[in-house]
Amino acid sequence: MSLIISGVDILGYVAGAITTLTFLPQVLKTIREKSVKDISLMMFVIAAVNEILWIIYGALKNDWVIILTNAVILCLSLTMIYLKFAYAHKHPSS
Amino acid sequence: MSLIISGVDILGYVAGAITTLTFLPQVLKTIREKSVKDISLMMFVIAAVNEILWIIYGALKNDWVIILTNAVILCLSLTMIYLKFAYAHKHPSS
Repeated sequence: MSLIISGVDILGYVAGAITTLTFLPQVLKTIREKSVKDISLMMFVIAAVNEILWIIYGALKNDWVIILTNAVILCLSLTMIYLKFAYAHKHPSS
Repeated sequence: MSLIISGVDILGYVAGAITTLTFLPQVLKTIREKSVKDISLMMFVIAAVNEILWIIYGALKNDWVIILTNAVILCLSLTMIYLKFAYAHKHPSS
């Protein structure tokens, strides 16, 4: 039984690790191509606010896995918000 | 003490509900503008695979909150993957 639980826990950690890095390909593509016209600013604003809520939740629960994983996603979200403004006028909507 | 725990739980549910709808503004913007050049396909492929792992994790844990919230995010991720291919040749990279 403990072996089964351990397998499920490992699946949870793997899924959590992948979640943390979901935004990374978008950040790398945007830095590479310097074009943000098709990117939804609202999506990353919602994500950033959401990560702050998760970090508060993790802090209240004293759960460092929640705090640290959401801190990484917050950094990637804030990076996308910065890039959206930084490159806003390079490729204007046509 | 139970009041404090209840408040933290509510914060968790609110954060979870927001997480579920994070991709929605991007889906709506992409449907509206029919342009996907700046969107990272890899991001949404990683998100979709990740949601499948979370759904399996939720099923093994018999946790319907995890199953249903990640099913919504999976639908939104698959929609973005479909849109990326559907509109791929409408605004070719320049």
